Amino acid sequence: MATIFTKIIEGEIPCHKVAETDDHIAFLDINPIAEGHTLVVPKREVDYFFDLPDDLMQSTMKFSRAIAHAIDEALSPLRTGVIVQGLEVPHAHVHLIPLYKTHQVMALGHNVEVSEQRMEELTQLISDEVQV
Amino acid sequence: MATIFTKIIEGEIPCHKVAETDDHIAFLDINPIAEGHTLVVPKREVDYFFDLPDDLMQSTMKFSRAIAHAIDEALSPLRTGVIVQGLEVPHAHVHLIPLYKTHQVMALGHNVEVSEQRMEELTQLISDEVQV
Repeated sequence: MATIFTKIIEGEIPCHKVAETDDHIAFLDINPIAEGHTLVVPKREVDYFFDLPDDLMQSTMKFSRAIAHAIDEALSPLRTGVIVQGLEVPHAHVHLIPLYKTHQVMALGHNVEVSEQRMEELTQLISDEVQV
Repeated sequence: MATIFTKIIEGEIPCHKVAETDDHIAFLDINPIAEGHTLVVPKREVDYFFDLPDDLMQSTMKFSRAIAHAIDEALSPLRTGVIVQGLEVPHAHVHLIPLYKTHQVMALGHNVEVSEQRMEELTQLISDEVQV
């Protein structure tokens, strides 16, 4: 059965897309733990991040770096952090979390409220800065 | 001034080392958030993970994968998660966190108690499984 991420990739489920290439997609997490919290997903369905074939893990990190730099340009956090946890959706993905202050809690589930209008603004701000 | 990680790399500060190559070192975090929580550090001092030169970011992830697989073999977690946050030490590093249950909190600062004896056992168990 297709994962929820594959349904997003195939356009069956809408998302706030910030970038897409042949092999990857990046969109805002609908349960953000910070404004601009973005998911990077390789289109190929592999459950465990560390089971990604070497070239796909490398291209996923390269794409993640490009998205992180776009977040940094768009939103000026101190920097952008990374979480790979992935026990909820069996489709490897990288969380990119803008860190706005030194002691910000960076833990999935520690959500912040972001309005739909602000989600759309964030999508635009980040996607405008993406260079892939 | 050398970072604390550089002092560890140079042997000025002891660590529970699980693996080392010309370019990287891996050792147990002394503030573990799970048993077997390991840090991967490129020896070159670069503050921000996403500022690592492309080849060094790639080799850091490849080395991290090898260490994650060693943790998986040694400790049989559900899988090993990743955190890159890095606002404490200005020297890029990857946290590898064994996840033993589905709803385990994965957040730096959410520490667990691990005795010195168990830290030594964990070091041995993981280092025995490393293939780099």
